[in-house]
Amino acid sequence: MNYKIQSLREKMKLMGIDGLIITNPINIFYMVGTKVEGIFLVTDRENVLITDARYIEEVNKSITIGDQIIVYDITNISDEDYLAFFAECSKIGIEENHITYAKYQTYVRKFRLKEAVETNNIIENMRMIKDEGEIAKIRRACEITDNCFRHLTEYIKIGMSEKEIALEIEKYFIDNGADGVAFETIVASGENSSKPHAVPTDRKIEQGDVIVIDFGAKYKGYCSDMTRTIFVGEVEESIKNLYNFILGCQERATNKIKDNAEGKLIAKSLESEFNARNQSMLHALGHGVGIDVHEFPIISEKACFTLKENMVVTNEPGIYIPGRFGIRIEDTILVNKMSCEVLTKSNKKLIVI
Amino acid sequence: MNYKIQSLREKMKLMGIDGLIITNPINIFYMVGTKVEGIFLVTDRENVLITDARYIEEVNKSITIGDQIIVYDITNISDEDYLAFFAECSKIGIEENHITYAKYQTYVRKFRLKEAVETNNIIENMRMIKDEGEIAKIRRACEITDNCFRHLTEYIKIGMSEKEIALEIEKYFIDNGADGVAFETIVASGENSSKPHAVPTDRKIEQGDVIVIDFGAKYKGYCSDMTRTIFVGEVEESIKNLYNFILGCQERATNKIKDNAEGKLIAKSLESEFNARNQSMLHALGHGVGIDVHEFPIISEKACFTLKENMVVTNEPGIYIPGRFGIRIEDTILVNKMSCEVLTKSNKKLIVI
Repeated sequence: MNYKIQSLREKMKLMGIDGLIITNPINIFYMVGTKVEGIFLVTDRENVLITDARYIEEVNKSITIGDQIIVYDITNISDEDYLAFFAECSKIGIEENHITYAKYQTYVRKFRLKEAVETNNIIENMRMIKDEGEIAKIRRACEITDNCFRHLTEYIKIGMSEKEIALEIEKYFIDNGADGVAFETIVASGENSSKPHAVPTDRKIEQGDVIVIDFGAKYKGYCSDMTRTIFVGEVEESIKNLYNFILGCQERATNKIKDNAEGKLIAKSLESEFNARNQSMLHALGHGVGIDVHEFPIISEKACFTLKENMVVTNEPGIYIPGRFGIRIEDTILVNKMSCEVLTKSNKKLIVI
Repeated sequence: MNYKIQSLREKMKLMGIDGLIITNPINIFYMVGTKVEGIFLVTDRENVLITDARYIEEVNKSITIGDQIIVYDITNISDEDYLAFFAECSKIGIEENHITYAKYQTYVRKFRLKEAVETNNIIENMRMIKDEGEIAKIRRACEITDNCFRHLTEYIKIGMSEKEIALEIEKYFIDNGADGVAFETIVASGENSSKPHAVPTDRKIEQGDVIVIDFGAKYKGYCSDMTRTIFVGEVEESIKNLYNFILGCQERATNKIKDNAEGKLIAKSLESEFNARNQSMLHALGHGVGIDVHEFPIISEKACFTLKENMVVTNEPGIYIPGRFGIRIEDTILVNKMSCEVLTKSNKKLIVI
């Protein structure tokens, strides 16, 4: 059995559940190692993947005997089969943050669940700590992102649209061995940069623009996440100061990232710096990165997560002046025992193109 | 108030509910006209959009006074506010196929819901019938897709990878006024084409390949969906026959698409044709297309939907010979009173490049 399933079974035991219905496809990918639609059932006797004709060929190719996963085609499962899966289980966990209310009702009925209980992100919590293989993939995704940024600083020219630049990023990723983008790229120029979640528009890059580029590659299913803010031509002194303020904030936060650091405290100390300038942080300071580009932990004043060795997190302070411009600087960072390693290594000195 | 909200309120009345919590972002986009994260509450007294700082600027720009939608920033809502929203409602609908089990529990508590009931895809059912504006957008998405296909028949050459072709499609869409792709493009060549849901790989196009290209553009939030199967060089007679069989199936199905036709019967008659060749359909014959690339109705033996004027659906029979090749032909089709209009007009004669 793969070590992830073993470790999940131990966590289930601690939680007092003897069966689990995994419905979140990202968690299924994590446990099973292949992208598939369906559900994954784990008890202390067996591991069952129920999928459909579209995925059977692929799944049978990627799963090994050692995985000890039994694969069923959903069309071959009878009502009796459903009743049998959890027949010897008394307390079955569900993924309450993923399963829909309707599916929950359906499964309670189909599996005739005696007691269905919430599992409080049991697999999401496991996913926070990355193993060697996962870190290697994220590291590669970060390298591709860095190389892409170097390319962008040459590529971006006045008159190009945000959409064009976003597409060039995707093309670069695919041409350089990535699966594709890890998330919808943000290229936000001029006043658009004041929106933290802007989508690329037809707006053309102009002299004097601030450009926020928030992008990441996916490599073998794992993500990177980086933001750089660059400038076109002359930069006003006041904007330069703000840029250096954000860069300083980011560096001070990075210096605090290590095993056992409290995310909440790191975010709080930055919030105080923002408040001293009559500003406040519009979004969390950071988040975990893995199969999902946004996963646990969350680094924010409002969340309680202790950073642990081999977590991979972002550190992304940003400031947004509505209708004028925004500045955000973000890296993907590996948490180590005594400090951390910034995996995205692109230049953060104020870049003027 | 916009006509969609008016119509929703009438449907709510028929269903005996006096409040509705809309959580599906696609349904929120449909009702409100702008892409936003949050929830949308409708009662017979008011329409309330609860969102966050990231979207407030955008929402306030796009919503008109006529919409009669009150917008709240979630950070400004107190526990008392939550209690007030549905204070005068007795039966509140939820979107059971979208809301997670955890959110359901949270909202029951926060809004102190007296009775929360399932609403059986109330908005998804409204979305099936498109209005003029929606049809115009889908029509434009289809035109861009057709133009892209014409470009592809010139562009695709031996030695190109599936990923390269998929990226060219995306680039074409963006360069030609689309928002982007409507869904992850499928370019499946050679033996990869035997997988109905293949993802583009690094496999390079070879002499003798079958290539299944399943793609669509998004235009102002609305999708197109088209598949063409093309051939590289010589085509075996048996494959030619199979291609013409699928094309014939598709044409016969198209001839049956009109107001009041039963989707199930159309799918059944094709299934009989497949069975006569010792084959069976691996997937549904078609699905609705709109804001989502897969929406209601479903045209399949297993689903009961009566086609209605101004629905937009796909018609996509396919055959898959494991490990060898696949053939699928798909169009996006507008249902009319007495017949239908095929909106994707690309050539379906056997194309050899």
